[in-house]
Amino acid sequence: MLDRNSIKVVFKSQNKEMKLGLRKDANSSTFKVLFLPYNKELIVDEGENVIRAAMEAGIDIKNTCAGEGICGKCRVIIESGTVNGGISGKLTSQDLKNGYRLACMAFVCSDLVIRIPEDSKFYSSIEHTQEAANLAACNNKVNLNGLKEKGFFHPPVEKVYVELPEPTSTDNIPDAVRLLNYLKIKDNMSFKIDFPVIQKLPDILRNSHFKITATLEQPVNPDGKTRIIDVQPGNTSEKNYALVFDIGTTTIYGELVNLVTGDSLERIVDLNTQINYGEDIISRIIFSEKPGGLEKLNELVVGVINSLIKKLAFKSEIDLNDISSIIIAGNTTMTQLFLKISPKSIRRSPYVPATTFYPSIKAASLGIELSDHVTTLFYPQISSYVGGDIVAGIIGSGIYKTEKLCLYMDIGTNAEIVVGNRDWLACAACSAGPAFEGGGISFGMVAMEGAIEDFSINKNTFEPLSVTIGRVKPKGICGSGLINMVAVLFENGIINSKGKFNRNIETSRLRENDGLWEYVVAWARETQIDKDIVLSESDIDNLIRAKGAIYSGFMTLLEEVGLTVNSIEMITIAGGFGNFIDLEKAMTIGLLPETDHGKVTFIGNGSLKGAKMAALSNTIRRDVVEVTKKMTSFELSETKSYMNNYIASLFLPHTDMNLFPGLTARMGEQKQVST
Amino acid sequence: MLDRNSIKVVFKSQNKEMKLGLRKDANSSTFKVLFLPYNKELIVDEGENVIRAAMEAGIDIKNTCAGEGICGKCRVIIESGTVNGGISGKLTSQDLKNGYRLACMAFVCSDLVIRIPEDSKFYSSIEHTQEAANLAACNNKVNLNGLKEKGFFHPPVEKVYVELPEPTSTDNIPDAVRLLNYLKIKDNMSFKIDFPVIQKLPDILRNSHFKITATLEQPVNPDGKTRIIDVQPGNTSEKNYALVFDIGTTTIYGELVNLVTGDSLERIVDLNTQINYGEDIISRIIFSEKPGGLEKLNELVVGVINSLIKKLAFKSEIDLNDISSIIIAGNTTMTQLFLKISPKSIRRSPYVPATTFYPSIKAASLGIELSDHVTTLFYPQISSYVGGDIVAGIIGSGIYKTEKLCLYMDIGTNAEIVVGNRDWLACAACSAGPAFEGGGISFGMVAMEGAIEDFSINKNTFEPLSVTIGRVKPKGICGSGLINMVAVLFENGIINSKGKFNRNIETSRLRENDGLWEYVVAWARETQIDKDIVLSESDIDNLIRAKGAIYSGFMTLLEEVGLTVNSIEMITIAGGFGNFIDLEKAMTIGLLPETDHGKVTFIGNGSLKGAKMAALSNTIRRDVVEVTKKMTSFELSETKSYMNNYIASLFLPHTDMNLFPGLTARMGEQKQVST
Repeated sequence: MLDRNSIKVVFKSQNKEMKLGLRKDANSSTFKVLFLPYNKELIVDEGENVIRAAMEAGIDIKNTCAGEGICGKCRVIIESGTVNGGISGKLTSQDLKNGYRLACMAFVCSDLVIRIPEDSKFYSSIEHTQEAANLAACNNKVNLNGLKEKGFFHPPVEKVYVELPEPTSTDNIPDAVRLLNYLKIKDNMSFKIDFPVIQKLPDILRNSHFKITATLEQPVNPDGKTRIIDVQPGNTSEKNYALVFDIGTTTIYGELVNLVTGDSLERIVDLNTQINYGEDIISRIIFSEKPGGLEKLNELVVGVINSLIKKLAFKSEIDLNDISSIIIAGNTTMTQLFLKISPKSIRRSPYVPATTFYPSIKAASLGIELSDHVTTLFYPQISSYVGGDIVAGIIGSGIYKTEKLCLYMDIGTNAEIVVGNRDWLACAACSAGPAFEGGGISFGMVAMEGAIEDFSINKNTFEPLSVTIGRVKPKGICGSGLINMVAVLFENGIINSKGKFNRNIETSRLRENDGLWEYVVAWARETQIDKDIVLSESDIDNLIRAKGAIYSGFMTLLEEVGLTVNSIEMITIAGGFGNFIDLEKAMTIGLLPETDHGKVTFIGNGSLKGAKMAALSNTIRRDVVEVTKKMTSFELSETKSYMNNYIASLFLPHTDMNLFPGLTARMGEQKQVST
Repeated sequence: MLDRNSIKVVFKSQNKEMKLGLRKDANSSTFKVLFLPYNKELIVDEGENVIRAAMEAGIDIKNTCAGEGICGKCRVIIESGTVNGGISGKLTSQDLKNGYRLACMAFVCSDLVIRIPEDSKFYSSIEHTQEAANLAACNNKVNLNGLKEKGFFHPPVEKVYVELPEPTSTDNIPDAVRLLNYLKIKDNMSFKIDFPVIQKLPDILRNSHFKITATLEQPVNPDGKTRIIDVQPGNTSEKNYALVFDIGTTTIYGELVNLVTGDSLERIVDLNTQINYGEDIISRIIFSEKPGGLEKLNELVVGVINSLIKKLAFKSEIDLNDISSIIIAGNTTMTQLFLKISPKSIRRSPYVPATTFYPSIKAASLGIELSDHVTTLFYPQISSYVGGDIVAGIIGSGIYKTEKLCLYMDIGTNAEIVVGNRDWLACAACSAGPAFEGGGISFGMVAMEGAIEDFSINKNTFEPLSVTIGRVKPKGICGSGLINMVAVLFENGIINSKGKFNRNIETSRLRENDGLWEYVVAWARETQIDKDIVLSESDIDNLIRAKGAIYSGFMTLLEEVGLTVNSIEMITIAGGFGNFIDLEKAMTIGLLPETDHGKVTFIGNGSLKGAKMAALSNTIRRDVVEVTKKMTSFELSETKSYMNNYIASLFLPHTDMNLFPGLTARMGEQKQVST
């Protein structure tokens, strides 16, 4: 059986006991540590971990493996004094000579001066990225006219202007009862009223001559009561906005929606800065279990959301006080971290999340800087690894309404797969690892400026042609670049189906380095980093494992429901990353099943679209409940066939070439041509 | 028409514009003010009010008329420097010579040294009072066996111990769903779960091997859902306590109840320290409308509640964390002040409260120092002047279940009257003024040690015999003492039916002072205060107005429902004060209708009893809703007959002596004897 944690450690985990927080006994000495270039000094106990000392000093250092000594990103320079440990295979002998150590493995044993090099600084924004580009071009517009025609355009949180009769000596019922009665007669609904509304109602009514605007939250349950969550003086019903967010492990997408017109006003994306404390969900959970870890991750994601809210409001020129609701779609772990709920049991068999449904929660109580009455609605989860983002994607893609059998995939560090149609839905998740987002790849990087995103090769000279994001000198390779690169090298016979380089090809690009074969994608002089950018067999292996996890994922899920890949009538690919996949190349490496390209749709950020639809329509919010009831979750690592399918998928494109007739034919032709 | 405010100003209000908060323009000078004996100094702007400066320095000064210059209790001594104003008829020329000024009417115009004399210090406790005595003797025990026999003993907030099956790979539903399913199967009820419970559930479940105690709040609506408001590790179901409070204008009663056994553990009473900022409801509301006034009054009542909670827990030796709920019964204004809801419109025609029903509110959000999950349940209000304390009293007295026609009265500064039986209930309130609690009476005082509570007279010498609370030298006269005194003086012909002294009686006790006739109850040398304690015609007038307001109140209410005083089959008198009324004397002065004493019951603090019953039984909590639906509120000051009845009641006992045949006969006999 394949355990989620073991899938994770495929990427060279050493599974060490974390040293963060280790302190010696009370009699131990204390030392001064000065962090440069920040010029921040603090006193720490002997044996204190360097990364933890930095955190205490308010300095954030990249640490994508959650302090496990795996990622090698927390490089610091010891300019004076000495540390215990910090030496790792991730550092070259030259690095060590220059004073570099890994902060997560280094412990204070003298006064220290430590410099944080530029590369190790926490990154906090993705201004010029593929995601940002995706955002502009994104394919996730809601069919607003459709909603309006069907009478479905009625947001869960609406504002209603009311002119109440003023009390008289023969009609002196209490203020709250006056408002409730009036609304009840008008809408024939049942209402309840939030306490803070009662608290301010007497003054607001009298200051505005009993002409007020009530903010109403509709119940998700049709038998429930409508809640009055706010009252404002006068008529403010024309100013009513919602925020929708898709909180991903890597990126957070947000959108500001006008609830009166239904229009989207602004869209935004940024890094989930938690990534500095773990690139994938498992590392993130490991970090959350350390002292203060959950609080730190919570603070980071809340911080990003607050900064995005301010930017969205600023760009749209709207007043923050006119925002009435937030809808959040996120994977289960991201949602729990946002809510400061320990995700500990999510990474341990039998993988149990805290809940599937969340009550509506006041945003202010979560640290969101909006008016106190603003409600946060959460997309419900299905399981520990199929979260609200996927439920939102199912809503956004509309596959829960189609007759056709559909395969829905959201490809990222974790890949979620849904199969089904309007009658039934089966879902599963598999841990693809961070390869698609640049993790576990020698020169892997997220899809930012300088990342190689496209690649071709001269069939005779084997010289490459790389294209980078922003058309600048390359710094590394992003996920879509990696897929294209491996597909091209494979189709040209430079890599075989096992992911090994053809040792017989004569080119200086192909070389053996420290026993590991690699292909030089760009020479040092052509790069921004003054190092040869290479693709190694280890990198290819990691990509094959990643795509193998996904391919075997949907194969197993289909088997579980008694279907084969040929029954699929529609493929919907969601996720920012999906938008940049070259369909043919993804089929070439066996990431996607080989199929008619016409059956494949890219919906971009389906989660954000789904979130927006729920923000605009309480009917759709009720559909969400129905969809979650219909969805059956399968735990792949618990099924017998998953390991078999996984092993069969660890080839380019697959051991069973019958599944890839087009590619087989194409490669046969090529072979004939070259002979 | 008689306005509530005009009833109030009967007590010599001057209805001045409040000067608190008055500041001169930005160019004005600043001065140093030193408060003794506290030795607190602060800098204030020229023109700052002295009482407000004291508040800013954190010093509380008595101010029972809400800074209107009426009560004369905020006497301070200007030891150095000068103030503008502060001179009042409340101060003698000797007082003025000694530097006394009224702080509420004095404004800073130089550097000052101000001494707060002992008498002006804020009082904060009623250790040795009639209320405290009443508490021990109180008549408000719940019939626990009766509740248990009827199957009604099931508190709205209960703790349930559950042993959940631990998750396995074939049963890995989310934690919250596991708990909900388990409870649902067990109890066949619908549940919802509070967000903080979801937040801590994963850790608590795993740290306690899935054996936990859930705290459940039953809905008041039978169709509603049971809320899970807390989970605790292990079995804590045997430790579950509730607090019940009756928040009165003068006093706050509290009781700690064991929700497992139903037993009362401890009872407590203390002053509502808000009384230092206004003795009656109207003064309290006036103060709440001043800058910072609402916050100050809220802080005071919350402070008293917190201190009572600590004392109750300490005396009962229970852990504060084992308290799960609080039930509050209070009059409408006290409830709104406790909830920091402006009561402004309660004192203005058409007298509209904020609400009648309150949702259950987390105690911590109200500043109550208990665990975050603790729920506060509020007795609903009927109108601005018939509050939750009266609804609780109706429940506590059980009159909502009797066939007999009952008159229920709660006599205090405000008197509430209910007439009805199990089929219907009519209610009204009238402002009796503070006479019964010592207000508006020259030597009036609350029922504390040193207050004259009983009184008799030698028919020949007219020499009095006074009995004080604590059997010490007298300091003043409390409400029950005042009733007894006036009744005795009236029955002995020293006062006539108009409340005037018989000028023909020859005794040094009776004298004219500054044009006002008075009777010397105690000579200066016999008192604690070195002043003659007297009863003046003005005091008698105030008492007559107070009792007249109440008598005309129930007369008018009876007329409204087409009944007369003779139809009454039961009289129930609630309130701490009620317990100390001498029935015959109260009938003599015309406070109560003359009736067979056997029909009259004193139930002590009926509100506290009702609150306790609701804490023990969700069935009774549902009865509360039914009772409020049955209760029709009459606004007496809006009815034509009230003023007529009021004027007819401004006699001892009444203009219509046919209503008092017993007294008429008795006085006739007496006259014959004396002739």
